[in-house]
Order: sequence, then structure tokens, then C-alpha cells
Amino acid sequence: MVKRVYNFYAGPATLPLPVLEKAQKNLLNFDDTGMSLMEISHRSKEYAKMHTEASSLVRELMGIPDDYKIMWLQGGASSQFYMVPLNLQVGKKPMEYVNTGVWSKKAIKEGKFYGDVKVVASSEDETFSYIPKDIEFSGNTAFAHITGNNTIYGTEYHEWPKVPSDVPLVCDMSSHIMDSVIDSKKFGVIYAGAQKNMGPAGVTLVIVRDDLLERVPENTPTMQKWKTHAEKDSLFNTGPCWAIYICKLSLEHLKELGSVSAMEKINRKKAKILYDVIDSSNDFYKGHAKKDSRSLMNVTFNLPTPELETKCVAEGLARNLVGLKGHRSIGGMRASIYNAMPVEGVQTLVEFMKEFQENNQ
Amino acid sequence: MVKRVYNFYAGPATLPLPVLEKAQKNLLNFDDTGMSLMEISHRSKEYAKMHTEASSLVRELMGIPDDYKIMWLQGGASSQFYMVPLNLQVGKKPMEYVNTGVWSKKAIKEGKFYGDVKVVASSEDETFSYIPKDIEFSGNTAFAHITGNNTIYGTEYHEWPKVPSDVPLVCDMSSHIMDSVIDSKKFGVIYAGAQKNMGPAGVTLVIVRDDLLERVPENTPTMQKWKTHAEKDSLFNTGPCWAIYICKLSLEHLKELGSVSAMEKINRKKAKILYDVIDSSNDFYKGHAKKDSRSLMNVTFNLPTPELETKCVAEGLARNLVGLKGHRSIGGMRASIYNAMPVEGVQTLVEFMKEFQENNQ
Repeated sequence: MVKRVYNFYAGPATLPLPVLEKAQKNLLNFDDTGMSLMEISHRSKEYAKMHTEASSLVRELMGIPDDYKIMWLQGGASSQFYMVPLNLQVGKKPMEYVNTGVWSKKAIKEGKFYGDVKVVASSEDETFSYIPKDIEFSGNTAFAHITGNNTIYGTEYHEWPKVPSDVPLVCDMSSHIMDSVIDSKKFGVIYAGAQKNMGPAGVTLVIVRDDLLERVPENTPTMQKWKTHAEKDSLFNTGPCWAIYICKLSLEHLKELGSVSAMEKINRKKAKILYDVIDSSNDFYKGHAKKDSRSLMNVTFNLPTPELETKCVAEGLARNLVGLKGHRSIGGMRASIYNAMPVEGVQTLVEFMKEFQENNQ
Repeated sequence: MVKRVYNFYAGPATLPLPVLEKAQKNLLNFDDTGMSLMEISHRSKEYAKMHTEASSLVRELMGIPDDYKIMWLQGGASSQFYMVPLNLQVGKKPMEYVNTGVWSKKAIKEGKFYGDVKVVASSEDETFSYIPKDIEFSGNTAFAHITGNNTIYGTEYHEWPKVPSDVPLVCDMSSHIMDSVIDSKKFGVIYAGAQKNMGPAGVTLVIVRDDLLERVPENTPTMQKWKTHAEKDSLFNTGPCWAIYICKLSLEHLKELGSVSAMEKINRKKAKILYDVIDSSNDFYKGHAKKDSRSLMNVTFNLPTPELETKCVAEGLARNLVGLKGHRSIGGMRASIYNAMPVEGVQTLVEFMKEFQENNQ
């Protein structure tokens, strides 16, 4: 029996066991080619079939309309931080952002290389513990940018902000892509590094409405243009084939579970189990995010003292509950309970937390 | 017994079987963590150990001096085509290139976005069948760029061009990195997409001399600067962890075989077996590259007619010799015999080629 733990890392993060088992089984011989998926030409028909299926699964599971392109790019969401303004800036219009944490700030920083950036709302005043309400984006701007889920602070948008009809809404969904059903038509651009809620590190899903591909300046280096990749179905150059393959297996698995709507139910159940224990702990466990902004994916909380937090992380580890240390910016603890985390993992965690509280309060 | 073929694809390409077997064995449980390498935080000590070992192996196997940084980046060599001029252009100095084929031309195209490009030598006059002799780079230029091995045409530098002492030599080694011993001090920058001679697609090795990291303009987006990645040991953002891991296993395998010097002997032996059959075929097989420019890695040749070429590719495939079709730009056939191709693979190929000639001439 192979050793496996419950892995609460924020990303790279746990993957569904059946996905890993399938990848392992076929590692030396993909699709009866006598080659590993890692060894096959990206121009071969066997690779092409897999690649197309991966994109089709995204379209189906997220309900992406036909007038959007689905791309598998390299460089992480961090590269999209500059690709978004580079590809969307037009007519020197301002670019508007909401600041909900470290990743928003990084996106804002890169936007400034391309023109006039306005931060229209921020939750920095309360250590990013909430999603701002009544966000007002202006008309006649290049785009409106939000970070859908904030991995570090454990907050998530539960209602999308309204944008003027001429402004594309751009969302970094790296840490909650496909955690719940969305109306994808609301967005001009969606991007997500795969390594949190969809697959392994090394590939970034980028979904762009067709008309937005035309804004990029002519004199832009080829690889920096979404249009380059969109026109060649992400095969302009050799892509991150293995990472796309693991995403494809992961998306198949999601489809078998009943698609995103079924996943959302499971995610709500998992989050409730964990937040209920926090809320009923008489402030032994104290959630960082305000209740109406709580993330389904990253549950952040503190204990009465840093010493108890260190002890709790260590005792969790001894019980094969891995990756529970919070991000250094807010300390404490964090349990990332992405799509691939089974309900049993969360149940095991809360049993441990209840016991830890009994023994230490 | 798992089905395996001899894979002559130009890239992604064959990987050493022991590497794949090790990756398969540990896929569900890396280094006794109870997690896949794909699931582990890139900030964990287990991942850090692997990451550092991969870089150390590059330094050791290629003899890279201490004043060079070793980076694992995303975006392919195609992204280096713009990152090279972006990071090295300085004082509006011209940038000089040698044009030895499709990949050189792509590099030249991206250079032009950043300033004055001069092509100092080209073999386009004879369908890129040779490496130009007596290349003369000028002094007082930003850099001198060459493509070390030309995958499509099957040519390779066997002697490095001289550059003025103030000019860094930049080499795209994507299709022959570590195929033979080099004096790495001759180069200012070496870059290589991993998916031909080192590992899987999705990671690019970039080696830069320290002083060259300082030229990049201040107002450059963070991810486009080598300096960003160099300062954080390629961990500024989440990297392509799995692809780096497979490179690391592949480099360990190369070390076990006796390092690059031993590999070079094997590569020369493999190339000789194949070129000897071509040269003794009375022009039934006709090599594309001139003899003194022949690649150790990509052996390109034509048959008397396109029909025979199609037949030869098909009959090879029926014998589990895969990926022998030449690139569309010169047609014919191509056998890529990278480091991971065993001598037996080449022997099987030449036995088939001799038989095919007997039956079809």
C-alpha cells in the first residue's frame, strides 16, 4: 500500500487519486503509442486528440460560449499580470483594479508598466479580511480586474461586481477555477494557474473573448500576444504537454463526479464542516475572513497564541495532515480544501482540531 | 511487458527508460512524503532539495563557472527569442545574429522589436545545409547570437565562432544541449528548451553570466526580466515543477552514464552508424547537411522520390520506428538521435534502411 497523506497545501496542491493512478499506469505507454505522453511530438495525432479534449472539457464544464478562445499557456498567472494590460490596454484608457490582497497587488504593479491604473476598491484597511461591497467600475476604461479568490487571506467573491457594458471584466481565478458554477459570459477574460484547483504547476488556463484579441499593438513580441496562441490553438510553440494532460485527466474526473454543479455542492459541504468547527470553538479557532467573504477553497484561522499554532501544525503533520501552516503575511493556519480534497480529508482534519482544542485550551 | 517503440521524433522526444520508470514508481509518493511531486508546495523542503539538485547537476555536467546563474523558466526557447534582446540590449548597440535556419529566423524576428539587428552570416543560399565558416562578429555590439544545432536541417556547429572580447556569445542549444563537451566560459548566455535533449516540454534551461543580468531596463515587467528569476533561484513564482523533476532524473541518468564526455562518445558512435549507411547507399539515401556541418542529433536525408520517402516512413512505423518523417520545409526523412536514443535504436533503424534500399532500388 503506497503512503498517502491529506495534503492541505495552497498550491501546488492535492490532485485526485484516480487522476494520479491513471497518469502512473500510462506513463510509459500513452494511448498505446509505445511512448510516454512526455515523449510524443506535439504535432502528432495522438497528442492533438488529447489537447483538443482538454480544451473541450473546459468549454463544457464551465459553459464557455463559442466566441471565447481557450488557451493553455506557460509562465503562470504571474505572466498574465503583464499580459492582461499588454493585450487589453487600448487608446490610453485607464485600467481599473480591485485590491483584495497580495496577488491583486502584484497584478496592479504590472498594470502600471502599461499605463494609467486606478484602484477602485480595496480591503487593505482590514488586512484583506473581506471582499469590498458596492464596487464601482467606471465606463470607458480598458478593463476591470478582480482576483476571484484570495489564497492567502481566505476570501472569495460570492457575487460578481457589475461592470459597464463597454468594459471587459477580467478575473484571476487561479485558486478557485471551477469551484462553483459561474456565468462565464459575465467575463471578458478568465485566467488561472492550474496548480491550485485544476492540475499541476506549469500551465495556465487563459480564456479570452474573441473581440479582445484584436487590441494588442502590432509591435509586440510574438509570444507576448494572446492572439499568437489563440490562432494556433496553443500550439504556436511546444506547450507544457504533460501539465495539460494532467489537467485533462482532472477535468474528466470532475465530469464523472457530475460536473461543476456537483462539485460546488461537495465544496459547500466541506467548507461548512470546517467553518462550523471554527465557529463553535468559542474563539479557540478564530477565522480570519469575514463570514460573508469566506472562501470555499482556503480556510484561514488563528489560534490563541503563535506557540499553539506551531504546536497544532506539528501535531497535524504527525497525523499525516500536511501543509496547514498559514502564509507568513497573516500567520496562523490555513487549510486549502480544493476540489481534489475529499470530504474524508476535511472530516479527519476537524476531528483532529476538536481533539487539539480539548487538550490545549 | 509494456509496449515501447524507438522514437525518432524531433521534440518532444524520447526519454531514457530508467528515468520514466523512476518517475512512474514514485508518482504517487515522492521522497516518502505521501504526495506526488506534482502536489507538493514549491516552498517545501522536499521540493527545494530536488530543485537545487537539478541546478547543481547542470553546473556539474556542463562545467558552468560560479559566476553564471542557472534558471528553469517557462515559455520555451520561443520566449527567449524576445528575452535575449530585451535583457541584453544596451546603449542602442546593434545585435548580431547568424541565420542557420527556421529557429534562427524566429530569433532574429523578435530581436527586431528591440533595436538594430544585423545578420552577419547566413546559409539560406543553400537551404541551410551548412554552418557558415569564418563568421565575423563586430565589436561594440549588444550580443552575438547563434543557433547551435538546427533541428530541421540537421546541421550543428563543430567549432564555435570567435567573438570580440566585449561581446557576449548567446547560443540557442535547444536541440543539442549536453550532446558533447563544451567550454561554457565561451558563452555569455546559453538557453535550451528541455524537450529535445534533456527532459519533457514545459521548461527551458537558461544560463546567464552574472554581469549580463544588470542590463535590463528598470521599467520592464517583472516576469520578463532574467534578474527576477536569477535572484529567486527560479522560485519567484511557481515553476514547472514536474518538468524540472524529469530533467533532474534525466541529468542523474547522464551522470551515471559517465557525464557529457561519455555521452559524446556514444553520440559520435550513433551518428557514425547512421551517416555511414547514408554515405554507402550510392545516393539512395542522400544526406541534406554538408559533411562538415552534420548534426550529431538530427540526421536529415532524402530518398530518390517523395513516394519512396512516404513508403519508407510507413514501413518504419510498422516496425515500431516512429517519427521519421522530415520537417515540411525540406521534406524527406529525419532521424533524431538525441542522448536518450540507445545505440540499439540506431542499429535497428539502419538494418531497416538497408533492407528497404535492397527492396526498393
